[in-house]
Amino acid sequence: MNSKKSNRGDEVKNRLSADLTQTDIATPVRSMHRRQFLKTGAVVAGTALMAGGLGPIAARAASTKNNLPPNTPEWMLKQGHPIVTPPYGVPSKYESDVIRRPTDLTPTDISSWSFTPLQDLHGIVTPNGLVYERHHAGVPAIDPAEHRLMIHGMVDNPKIFTVEDLKRFPAVSHFYFLECSGNTLTEWVKPKGKTVQSTHGLLSCCEWTGVPLSTVLQEVGLKHGASWLLAEGADAAALDRSVPISKALDDAILVYAQNGEALRPEQGYPLRLLLPGFEGNMSVKWLRRIEVGDKPFMSHEETAKYTDLMPDGKARILTFVMEAKSVITSPSGGHRLHDKGFHEIRGLAWSGSGRISRVDVSVDGGRNWRRAELQGPVLPKCLTRFRIPWEWRGKEAILQSRTMDDTGYVQPTLKQLVAVRGTHSVYHYNAIQSWHVAADGEVTNVHA
Amino acid sequence: MNSKKSNRGDEVKNRLSADLTQTDIATPVRSMHRRQFLKTGAVVAGTALMAGGLGPIAARAASTKNNLPPNTPEWMLKQGHPIVTPPYGVPSKYESDVIRRPTDLTPTDISSWSFTPLQDLHGIVTPNGLVYERHHAGVPAIDPAEHRLMIHGMVDNPKIFTVEDLKRFPAVSHFYFLECSGNTLTEWVKPKGKTVQSTHGLLSCCEWTGVPLSTVLQEVGLKHGASWLLAEGADAAALDRSVPISKALDDAILVYAQNGEALRPEQGYPLRLLLPGFEGNMSVKWLRRIEVGDKPFMSHEETAKYTDLMPDGKARILTFVMEAKSVITSPSGGHRLHDKGFHEIRGLAWSGSGRISRVDVSVDGGRNWRRAELQGPVLPKCLTRFRIPWEWRGKEAILQSRTMDDTGYVQPTLKQLVAVRGTHSVYHYNAIQSWHVAADGEVTNVHA
Repeated sequence: MNSKKSNRGDEVKNRLSADLTQTDIATPVRSMHRRQFLKTGAVVAGTALMAGGLGPIAARAASTKNNLPPNTPEWMLKQGHPIVTPPYGVPSKYESDVIRRPTDLTPTDISSWSFTPLQDLHGIVTPNGLVYERHHAGVPAIDPAEHRLMIHGMVDNPKIFTVEDLKRFPAVSHFYFLECSGNTLTEWVKPKGKTVQSTHGLLSCCEWTGVPLSTVLQEVGLKHGASWLLAEGADAAALDRSVPISKALDDAILVYAQNGEALRPEQGYPLRLLLPGFEGNMSVKWLRRIEVGDKPFMSHEETAKYTDLMPDGKARILTFVMEAKSVITSPSGGHRLHDKGFHEIRGLAWSGSGRISRVDVSVDGGRNWRRAELQGPVLPKCLTRFRIPWEWRGKEAILQSRTMDDTGYVQPTLKQLVAVRGTHSVYHYNAIQSWHVAADGEVTNVHA
Repeated sequence: MNSKKSNRGDEVKNRLSADLTQTDIATPVRSMHRRQFLKTGAVVAGTALMAGGLGPIAARAASTKNNLPPNTPEWMLKQGHPIVTPPYGVPSKYESDVIRRPTDLTPTDISSWSFTPLQDLHGIVTPNGLVYERHHAGVPAIDPAEHRLMIHGMVDNPKIFTVEDLKRFPAVSHFYFLECSGNTLTEWVKPKGKTVQSTHGLLSCCEWTGVPLSTVLQEVGLKHGASWLLAEGADAAALDRSVPISKALDDAILVYAQNGEALRPEQGYPLRLLLPGFEGNMSVKWLRRIEVGDKPFMSHEETAKYTDLMPDGKARILTFVMEAKSVITSPSGGHRLHDKGFHEIRGLAWSGSGRISRVDVSVDGGRNWRRAELQGPVLPKCLTRFRIPWEWRGKEAILQSRTMDDTGYVQPTLKQLVAVRGTHSVYHYNAIQSWHVAADGEVTNVHA
């Protein structure tokens, strides 16, 4: 142990005082195979560097407008904005088009929804300002100090918790997607959405932090035979849904933070339920009450709404899991390819049943498929970004993605989906999406 | 293959039409060991549920103020705010204290810095509005359509790229921390920062998306012997730093997006360099120029600034890596424990050399240590959230965290750090942080 300690001490000391100029910090390049993706980067001739190019700002310390190279951009000629303007930062004014957009299908903007601009996003995180919305009676303005969560019913010890009480429990943080069961509802019969924002934008992904619901249920003690609970929100709709106790004890979370900071008002501030992989409306926002029982509560939202009308006239009910689905976000509806040659096809895949195991991409409407690369870490019940190179030759193409999850479930074609479900359903549409690329580069939504 | 296909077809069909009411979806609880963390959740008597408690909203559909239970909160009595108000969402007004705060050490707010409120954050993601700032000449307002990146010097094919050019290259997304080399600079001699925001808040973590710098360097072709590059920003300071080519070809990224959306202006919009694990100022923002050479460029920022003055009067230079470091964020300076009993100690650990392998926590100033739980996924050069339970008995305590990374590096004590570096350094302070908990629950910054 002593020698080990002493070695560790030396290691610390060495690292603390390392003189990096003496180390092999920069190994010169011996040879490098040159590879060209683009023809578009402008080639710079030697002289252009000093004249019309973006020359080095040579005499920077003493520089004036007169001794700066030509083409020095105007924003280098003056000091920029000070820090903390504003203290809570906002996007560049040049990004003012990257916003949530409302549906045009609802007569009110209170019981309505707005879409995440997936065509403008990268990676897997949805920034909090762009997380999609679905409200049944608008967004309540809740004072967190006044908010309470009551847990009662088939429990040993019914309790009322403040938000501060809940924050004291052992916490967890996980990245999970959230998808409205009605996402892509316009696409059952005809291709209607113009952009991926309108076809698939009831979908977002955040890092959620809170206390596992199982911890709090252990605190109150479940009675023998408890098998369902009812979760109720503190909005004017008092939206409520039944949740199987197996889910509650598995990965359900009482969430108070998203992407590091407090939940946003439209995401349930100060407290929401989160049921990873289940349809979004069950992750009840502004959570105020959990009642434990021994059967589904058959609320309005799971009988009159959020059911799937099948071809035989019966309705599937309590269809919780959002099954595997994927969509290409770039290029996608509303985009236009300006150049032939290299393009990277990018998209998102997700499954409420587990991890994405594979995404295949077709550029010929499903005749041939190539396997896309998945960006790690690939997390369960989380968006997964996929990418695959594509050489566009300036001809018509139909782009599709098809995903599989680690349960073996394969995303269906539209034909497969409709063969089973018919076209009277609203919810749980997860068919393969097709984007048509015209010879002039215009990208549009098609059924193929 | 045929039978496999047919099985898969059946599986898809079954899953598409599953009637979940017929499945074993909710297994009743048989018995559950009750466990109590808190004494604080208010116990509810049976009658209170219907009277003074948070009773069910019984006749919701036809409800008026008169038939609602008492104590129904005011926000359930009226419709809430409509969707997309605003289209780009903002935090609750009750969170107005969760903001970046400026330093009081600089005479100007142009060449200055602001801190991330780590004491209010959860998980590992820093929301874009709260990412710390460090500018040398303020934030330039750059039109992305006018912005260019030139790569020249020891390359076969000098080129000028637009931002759109760079977005067409194959992309990557990674979660990485970013830390100013001056983070915790106030703590060398005396404990000065009142909160973890002021001691450690020059630290943030985002999901960054862009094109690997290696890809673009392959595009221009590096000449034999190339071993360093200079990266220069398009701010009025034209901040520039030398980067070893080994780093450029390893994990450096030309970044255009953070946490899903475009870079924020104060993070380098529309384009920045990102050097994972290196001191923040080297991840040059508003990146306009990369010059390739065969030795360090010895810019102002790496000779006059960003060097570490050692006890012998010599200065370490080119000290790039932010070594392993950790801090407890809750409870931390400025907090007050109101109750004895269970508390979860929470904090962050990170290392510019790789993955966090371990965090130990002491509540007695370093005499005894217990191993904390790390929240997965534990990613390289990324913040890692750690948590450990603590039973506070209402007595004085000194809380410390000590991390180790997967290279075996152990975060030093202040004594170890000062023994090697002395106290004339400004940058690269990574000693163990101590928080003193008084008998009355007040938490303050101490050296221990």
